Amino acid sequence: MRIIEEKIELEKYLRSIAFTDYREIEEIEEKVKKIITDVIFRKDEAILEYTRLFDCKEIEFVDLTVKEDEIERAYLECQEEEPEFIEALKIAYENIYQYHLRQKEETWLYVKGDTILGQIIRPLEKVGIYVPGGNGSYPSTVLMNSIPAKIAGVKEIIMVTPPDKHKKINKYTLAAAKICGINKIFKVGGAQAIAALAIGTQLIPRVDKIVGPGNIYVAIAKKVLFGVVDIDSVAGPSEVLVIADSSANPKYVAADLLSQAEHDTRAKSILITTSKELAFEVVENINEMLKTNPNPIAFQSIEKNGVVIIVEDLEEAASISNIICPEHLELCCKNPEELIFKIKNAGAIFVGEFSPEPIGDYIAGPNHVLPTSGTARFFSPLGVYDFVKRVSVIKYSKDQFFKDAPLAIEVAQKEGFSFHANSLKVRLEDVQK
Amino acid sequence: MRIIEEKIELEKYLRSIAFTDYREIEEIEEKVKKIITDVIFRKDEAILEYTRLFDCKEIEFVDLTVKEDEIERAYLECQEEEPEFIEALKIAYENIYQYHLRQKEETWLYVKGDTILGQIIRPLEKVGIYVPGGNGSYPSTVLMNSIPAKIAGVKEIIMVTPPDKHKKINKYTLAAAKICGINKIFKVGGAQAIAALAIGTQLIPRVDKIVGPGNIYVAIAKKVLFGVVDIDSVAGPSEVLVIADSSANPKYVAADLLSQAEHDTRAKSILITTSKELAFEVVENINEMLKTNPNPIAFQSIEKNGVVIIVEDLEEAASISNIICPEHLELCCKNPEELIFKIKNAGAIFVGEFSPEPIGDYIAGPNHVLPTSGTARFFSPLGVYDFVKRVSVIKYSKDQFFKDAPLAIEVAQKEGFSFHANSLKVRLEDVQK
Repeated sequence: MRIIEEKIELEKYLRSIAFTDYREIEEIEEKVKKIITDVIFRKDEAILEYTRLFDCKEIEFVDLTVKEDEIERAYLECQEEEPEFIEALKIAYENIYQYHLRQKEETWLYVKGDTILGQIIRPLEKVGIYVPGGNGSYPSTVLMNSIPAKIAGVKEIIMVTPPDKHKKINKYTLAAAKICGINKIFKVGGAQAIAALAIGTQLIPRVDKIVGPGNIYVAIAKKVLFGVVDIDSVAGPSEVLVIADSSANPKYVAADLLSQAEHDTRAKSILITTSKELAFEVVENINEMLKTNPNPIAFQSIEKNGVVIIVEDLEEAASISNIICPEHLELCCKNPEELIFKIKNAGAIFVGEFSPEPIGDYIAGPNHVLPTSGTARFFSPLGVYDFVKRVSVIKYSKDQFFKDAPLAIEVAQKEGFSFHANSLKVRLEDVQK
Repeated sequence: MRIIEEKIELEKYLRSIAFTDYREIEEIEEKVKKIITDVIFRKDEAILEYTRLFDCKEIEFVDLTVKEDEIERAYLECQEEEPEFIEALKIAYENIYQYHLRQKEETWLYVKGDTILGQIIRPLEKVGIYVPGGNGSYPSTVLMNSIPAKIAGVKEIIMVTPPDKHKKINKYTLAAAKICGINKIFKVGGAQAIAALAIGTQLIPRVDKIVGPGNIYVAIAKKVLFGVVDIDSVAGPSEVLVIADSSANPKYVAADLLSQAEHDTRAKSILITTSKELAFEVVENINEMLKTNPNPIAFQSIEKNGVVIIVEDLEEAASISNIICPEHLELCCKNPEELIFKIKNAGAIFVGEFSPEPIGDYIAGPNHVLPTSGTARFFSPLGVYDFVKRVSVIKYSKDQFFKDAPLAIEVAQKEGFSFHANSLKVRLEDVQK
């Protein structure tokens, strides 16, 4: 794990992580565009072909739709064999639901003079949720992506996830779908699943928005089709940044940095601390933990992207963190609350030593889908606001129109739009008669 | 203007406008990517070169920055020669400001058991506004794009707009900038301006989000760089849809359809009506107005994309409108209010005969930057919500952690993340001691 103490070295490091080069992905983009075009032209035929090619050789068209009893069985099996897990998911569901309920916006209208103006909130009608598959299990992904959509009022949630080699979907993922009331699930993954959701095939309905994490093919397909369909933010490797002073527990900090590192070799685990002593203790703890639990992904990630930055004071720590814009920010210092309002850019802030990042991943309530790779500069956590659209309303009375139309004509004419002016004039002439 | 009465013909029409083929733009995308790459490597040198190539042969580097007194002079000149215009802009500013103020969101925190959870609202720090240039004048664009940013609390607004052949920027555009308090303006346009704002050069600061309309090069550059920077929605040709019954004034409807048509030959002007008589009267009025004001863009647009759809009742009209998802929707019928809540998809709804679309473009208050080309299915008007980001806050107490951590461990283990579980366990062990 690299330790940075010098200002020059720090500046070099910050520059190196500042800009993700979009050109790296051009080669994959070509492949993805080929798949999308194929789905546009050959629809379900292409879907089946790619699923056989990438996921499950033996799968038939009829297998692509998850049957109601497949979901039911998975849920009952979990409930019988692992009731604590089902119980945990249900409590998580409730916590996530309660938090996101506060994000719900209401339609408003108001009268200004003789005019009614307003903003109507309308849920999206259909939403697609991508859940990674293969050998993984992603029950928390199902909860975090579907609950805000449900609160927004989305009527139809369509889940897509690639099958394993035996045509199956992970039972924990299915159990989570059952708890969330999702019963339209298709065993389709990759760029072909995104294309199907964006365009619509006979099997898979066209949706208004696609959310959920996926590999680089999924991410690029979403970006290519952005505009044809709405998407959540473009997700990249994730990061945790811990700001700690000498009061922090080095064992806790080490464990939290490692929890991020096990996601991906490209994940970034960053510690900014005012205490050199703590820095060394954290590194020691990380090494020990990696000995006890020799995880090659976490090891490589820490080796390549693990960084400790030594600073003068917490003020400096906050300002460096604002440049990095971490997905997850932990404040492990005395009076951490005081630091919160110095933070401009972060996906989520975890305050104090009993708020490790994984408590937010699974149970606290706020969304774990957060802006990654520095995009917390402008993106937000996934929320209810992602599943609604706003519609403006304008209703003028005759009197108000008489007052305002001449002003609008003034501007329309300066912009050279004579038919815009005409639309106002034909009415004004009638009013003046 | 085409008149559709048959169900089969209607279905064919609706299918034809349902899907914008993203592949059409691939050729332009190559050119745009070349410009972006050039700006990444050669920064301001590339900026100057492209501005000379596309906009103004003679321009020098020092001319690219608009001087304070250039803005001041434009404003004073307008105020002296066209005081009504300045007055109109100021009233528009106030109306837009008052409407958007209602969109402002506040930070909230709440206590759940022993846990503090919340959502902090933070303005974006820097925003770039693209304003088209050349021979056009776009004062209303400046107002509509900058006022929501200002209300959100954005500290730095950077405006870019291409100069004309004489190195100049339109005075009405500059006067609007003065009214909005924008003083960082650069005479740079096209894909090179978008690249500069996204990446940052010595001249032009890197921003967090780019908004504002532009040609196809600007639109594609924004899409390519989406993720490096945030953007407003991907804008396409715009449309107006008028729902009218026999009570509507055919002259008004004709004028409104034409006001949309003058924007672009690809703009869509659509009338859905229960009255055949009205349909014919509208077409007649359009033909007359085009004779009086022979505008070739409006003429071509009406010829190519103007459509009248005859329906049985207003219910049917609303459901067809929901499929088309128009940018602008006018309700010109008896009791138009009753129809509002049947509308699921639209950018803005204009209610009643004294609410023509241009009143919303210039003076009413709601934003005129609206989702086009059917994207009202999922996109919203530009608003204050576009210029903030949200940051989640999680603060657990020791007691609450003790209750919730075992549940989180349960889910973490099912997802195969042992270091996530470890981060919780190391604390739990200490708590249990």
